[in-house]
Amino acid sequence: MVIFFFGFIIGWFAKPVLSETEKHAESNKYLKEFLGEMKAEKIRHHLRKFTRLPHLAGTEQNLKYAEQIRREWQDFGLDSVDLVHYDVLLSYPNKTHPNYISIVDSLGNEVFNTSLAEPVPEGYEDIPDIVPPYSAFSAKGNPEGEMVYVNYGRTEDFFQLEREMGLNVTGKIVIVRYGKIFRGNKVKNAILSGAKGIIMFSDPADYCADGVQTYPEGWNLPGGGAQRGNVLNLNGAGDPLTPGYPAKEYTYRYKLEEGVGLPKIPVHPVGYHDAINLLKNMGGQIPPNNWKGNLNVSYKIGPGFINDYKNFTVRLNIHTNNQVTRIYNVIGKIRGAIEPDRYVILGGHRDAWVFGGIDPMSGAAVVHETVRSAGRLINRGWRPRRTMIFASWDAEEFGLQGSTEWAEENAKVLQERAVAYINADSAIEGMYTLRVDCTPSLHTLVYEITKQISSPEEGEEDMSLYESWHRRDNWTNHRNAPRISKLGSGSDFEAYFIRLGIAAGRARYTKNKKTERYSSYPVYHSVYETFEVVDKFYDPSFRRLEAVARVRGGLIFSLADSLLLPLNINEYADALQFYATSISQIAGRNPDEMQKYEVSFDSLFSAADNFTTVARDFHERLESLNKADPLQVRIVNDQLMYLERAFIDPLGLPDRPFYRHVIFAPSRHNKYAGESFPGIYDALFDIENAADPEKSWDEVKRQISIATFTVHAAAMTLTVPA
Amino acid sequence: MVIFFFGFIIGWFAKPVLSETEKHAESNKYLKEFLGEMKAEKIRHHLRKFTRLPHLAGTEQNLKYAEQIRREWQDFGLDSVDLVHYDVLLSYPNKTHPNYISIVDSLGNEVFNTSLAEPVPEGYEDIPDIVPPYSAFSAKGNPEGEMVYVNYGRTEDFFQLEREMGLNVTGKIVIVRYGKIFRGNKVKNAILSGAKGIIMFSDPADYCADGVQTYPEGWNLPGGGAQRGNVLNLNGAGDPLTPGYPAKEYTYRYKLEEGVGLPKIPVHPVGYHDAINLLKNMGGQIPPNNWKGNLNVSYKIGPGFINDYKNFTVRLNIHTNNQVTRIYNVIGKIRGAIEPDRYVILGGHRDAWVFGGIDPMSGAAVVHETVRSAGRLINRGWRPRRTMIFASWDAEEFGLQGSTEWAEENAKVLQERAVAYINADSAIEGMYTLRVDCTPSLHTLVYEITKQISSPEEGEEDMSLYESWHRRDNWTNHRNAPRISKLGSGSDFEAYFIRLGIAAGRARYTKNKKTERYSSYPVYHSVYETFEVVDKFYDPSFRRLEAVARVRGGLIFSLADSLLLPLNINEYADALQFYATSISQIAGRNPDEMQKYEVSFDSLFSAADNFTTVARDFHERLESLNKADPLQVRIVNDQLMYLERAFIDPLGLPDRPFYRHVIFAPSRHNKYAGESFPGIYDALFDIENAADPEKSWDEVKRQISIATFTVHAAAMTLTVPA
Repeated sequence: MVIFFFGFIIGWFAKPVLSETEKHAESNKYLKEFLGEMKAEKIRHHLRKFTRLPHLAGTEQNLKYAEQIRREWQDFGLDSVDLVHYDVLLSYPNKTHPNYISIVDSLGNEVFNTSLAEPVPEGYEDIPDIVPPYSAFSAKGNPEGEMVYVNYGRTEDFFQLEREMGLNVTGKIVIVRYGKIFRGNKVKNAILSGAKGIIMFSDPADYCADGVQTYPEGWNLPGGGAQRGNVLNLNGAGDPLTPGYPAKEYTYRYKLEEGVGLPKIPVHPVGYHDAINLLKNMGGQIPPNNWKGNLNVSYKIGPGFINDYKNFTVRLNIHTNNQVTRIYNVIGKIRGAIEPDRYVILGGHRDAWVFGGIDPMSGAAVVHETVRSAGRLINRGWRPRRTMIFASWDAEEFGLQGSTEWAEENAKVLQERAVAYINADSAIEGMYTLRVDCTPSLHTLVYEITKQISSPEEGEEDMSLYESWHRRDNWTNHRNAPRISKLGSGSDFEAYFIRLGIAAGRARYTKNKKTERYSSYPVYHSVYETFEVVDKFYDPSFRRLEAVARVRGGLIFSLADSLLLPLNINEYADALQFYATSISQIAGRNPDEMQKYEVSFDSLFSAADNFTTVARDFHERLESLNKADPLQVRIVNDQLMYLERAFIDPLGLPDRPFYRHVIFAPSRHNKYAGESFPGIYDALFDIENAADPEKSWDEVKRQISIATFTVHAAAMTLTVPA
Repeated sequence: MVIFFFGFIIGWFAKPVLSETEKHAESNKYLKEFLGEMKAEKIRHHLRKFTRLPHLAGTEQNLKYAEQIRREWQDFGLDSVDLVHYDVLLSYPNKTHPNYISIVDSLGNEVFNTSLAEPVPEGYEDIPDIVPPYSAFSAKGNPEGEMVYVNYGRTEDFFQLEREMGLNVTGKIVIVRYGKIFRGNKVKNAILSGAKGIIMFSDPADYCADGVQTYPEGWNLPGGGAQRGNVLNLNGAGDPLTPGYPAKEYTYRYKLEEGVGLPKIPVHPVGYHDAINLLKNMGGQIPPNNWKGNLNVSYKIGPGFINDYKNFTVRLNIHTNNQVTRIYNVIGKIRGAIEPDRYVILGGHRDAWVFGGIDPMSGAAVVHETVRSAGRLINRGWRPRRTMIFASWDAEEFGLQGSTEWAEENAKVLQERAVAYINADSAIEGMYTLRVDCTPSLHTLVYEITKQISSPEEGEEDMSLYESWHRRDNWTNHRNAPRISKLGSGSDFEAYFIRLGIAAGRARYTKNKKTERYSSYPVYHSVYETFEVVDKFYDPSFRRLEAVARVRGGLIFSLADSLLLPLNINEYADALQFYATSISQIAGRNPDEMQKYEVSFDSLFSAADNFTTVARDFHERLESLNKADPLQVRIVNDQLMYLERAFIDPLGLPDRPFYRHVIFAPSRHNKYAGESFPGIYDALFDIENAADPEKSWDEVKRQISIATFTVHAAAMTLTVPA
């Protein structure tokens, strides 16, 4: 009897404690296996396989790749893999009426025409369906007139042109160089300034690295190469005709003229060989040096031509068509063993402008290898605690459409269940070191994971990726650790992070920002983005891509399999403090107005302080958590998961209903350099050009109040009645 | 060894099963105790205590009652009780310049003035601070002109006036009778029609029951009584100056002229004695019989007067002030023992126009008794599985402000954690039977609970409340069970249900709708809403209020303490099917246009069918659920909890950003008779007066698409990867 009782008592208490301890050890063992299983050679194989043919969104080939990925993911061992389609607005050149730009003499003769296509690289000469360079969603038309050069086409460039150089572009055709900001914003700025057409060119200053040869001898952009890309201003809306809702069969579609973000004027991109011919006869003032690129022309701003070309005009000939087209996401799942209703998502796009050697297939090959590795574990009996979802998105290049439509269709479920979203666009854009952009609560996990991965660099065989990264990019001013940046915009994480408030991050290999000044990477969105550009130049050993695979894979593994979610809220608190200080310093440049209009950041600082205290208390409570109690664990995990959600304002940012994250969203004014607290930042920026300063400062106050509220509301989610 | 092993195994498996079974039995035992503890005599005592003095929102007395409630709830045994304040826009008459309406002769003399106050009932003669009848948030001003009578001031009344009677009210003062629709909508309609002032009166046809004497001899409205009330059009915004955000110290406030829903013209209410004097000399056409009330006048529509009063005008003299004022909610909590992060809320308002004998103190007394009963259980060692929250809201009468501001401040936490909200406004409005309005998933629980409660009616000692209710109000066309209605609007559940998507319900005692045709209850919002009107007429035994207390209490108890949430999703499926049919029938009245504009409800029917299947499968899976596994239980409970949330569209209904529930929200057109699928309903209604039918039918299609999407999205929340 006593022995029975003794056994009973031990049985009673033993069960949960034992199994949680076991699980933790097992999880770590499987993480090592999971990372080790991902192999450079396999990634090379995947990349080779998926870059043989052009696979633009909406084409048959991109569907074929989707079907192939479905088959292979099924074979790897996922529980389910489905194609999920939407019918969204895409945009293609007219095959029988090519787009080009002409210089037209006073008799109406086309004295110069830009090229209709890029010279095709060796080995690809017989490949069909290479779409020529174009600006997707350009308006159709043949606007003709004088040309004006506006540097990068930024807000400040147009201001400078109009105020300092005294030139008005109303009714002109503007020519801008690519770089610094998203091309859609250049188009928006040109339209706001009254231009009737816009030409974008790649200047060697921005698309060639020093001492590097052009492709195929090196990885610089050849003179005949040009950058494709969409010129929308979607602000996170996804399909322009179905904003807010998935583009399914039953979905109401707005008329084309009501579509979100479609430019009203023709737009076209050219390479630098064509650009020279357009620019070389321009007249007008010589601009300041920072307006000059590396072409052998004087970069005169116009308007129009001089000398022999006097009275000549420029004409755009654009016949691009918008059309509703079916796209396909591939969605693969591994059901979570214990919490199937918690999702960790690894998603990246599959559609490419041409071959997509870097963008996106270097990323897609990495996802493929991650799925293969997960499948190996599944086949050995492993199953993650939470559900893993793998996504191959379509139509990212046309405005993040595949990922956004799926987010819209699954919004409710994702809001309830998504733990994190890891983005998998291009895995490499340089040969220097790791680059990570993520939400603050993921910082700690990123450091932990990169310490468990080897450096891919030659001569660093005994070094961790963390150390290698730390050596190359120390976050000096902030802490003695590798730099991690804020998430910006422009890839498939937007709907998940900025609209839905799901903790998100991305990782890739990058260039040395301090020494390499070119934009993005030189062959970006050109036909020269081939398998070979990676295989010969960016990552011949494929060890860099392997390292990126392990970072992305390690993140989703830990997020899906840890008993306690590996999110650090103290890091969020630090970030909020830093951002509040930073935004208040920007405002502080106007001390007189601050006083006059009684603008104060005190409430925001106080909210950040409160958040900091609450975060610290939360993590202290975690220390004494009974990890053997599944409900107690779920309760704190729910708080960790929902923290990011708390920064979402359902009312959205002003005039941008689908950008809802109060801390992280692109500024209206500079897509790639947005401050945090975008609402406050935009309001402050608007003051510089405000007709009614009182009203503008009033908006600053309103935005401070919204930010204060949001930080307080987020802190509330970290406590439970006690 | 064998015995030890045997004990170990039994201990291993015994623990959870045993404890869950025990808990279930214990929960039922405590439910009985909880219901039994609530006593008629105690409710009478609470009602007496809290109706001695006027306690308008924003006054000292209403704060005193809040402090008293806090003290008593603490004494009853709640874990925490707090006053939570907001600074919101309220509206009061000017104490030195009373509001009134005059008939003015052609020399400018006031030949008749309406009364400045209601005759005070016996026993209350020395009570200070009785606010005279007024329309809260009326614009200030002295508009003068011809009067036009517009029946109830509904959209259809204004149409009839303008189209059939050929009368334009631009620049006129309109006089309408109270009833049928919310008074704020009468004001909106009058403004849209161009009126410059609006007078509202209580007609005996709408505010006196047949064969009943006026107060104090009976419960009919005396001729000197008038209905106070706000005339806002908030559409769920809460404080007009801080829409979307809580009105805290740090919150940005819009300027008064930017405030949400504030009428731009003066408005004033009168009783029927004054109304006779205003109406009796009116000229113009005699309207149809359904425009005539029970006053001894001809109800001529005007414009203006005849005979001796020819050329006389009517003038409103309104000096009411809007002012930002501090209000106080009382929030009491009982921490949940097992899931402290799941909230069940019982909330009702405390502020009253005067004494609040019925509205709201009959409800507040019931809440008070519920808290007392819960405290008794707590003192005996009981604690609910989930957290219970009790709320005494302030400023409901000024546009649901206390409840909405608290919902705004706690929106994030509530979205994550709130299981249900039970509303506790007036507990009695008639002497006939129970009335329940709730979300479909609560139907089953309402039936179950009412079967466990005794009928309060004399001669029904052995009958359950369910049987008594069933006899009096069978839901004949729908099922053989008591009728349950949809939740409408106009009380504190709005922010919780229509904005946040928290399952909600309300219960009260009501009149016999088939035989009693008056609006609301006769003394509604008058000084005659005293303790005595309940004690002498509505519920002398207080057994009706006791029954209502047990219904409300039983609901929150079961929701807070059941292992599995008592929500029935099959009921939601039935409701969706029914509503889809109903809305398609309304559309079907226009078969030609349906065909011409290719409008189809097929996608909505298909979504409802899918939802029905998924709901059935969900409940089937529940049958085989391992209730001993706390995580499995939590997972299905999360699905049950979040279902209502899935019907929320963050984009809101057209032009009403704070009404977000796609199935249940008031129609723009008829506040108290709104159809479900309000977006579709409103679009269909708009067609009747559309300048551009194609555009209007297009909006119908858009709304069908949104509804279809929402029903599909809701169904998705009922499954987990398997």
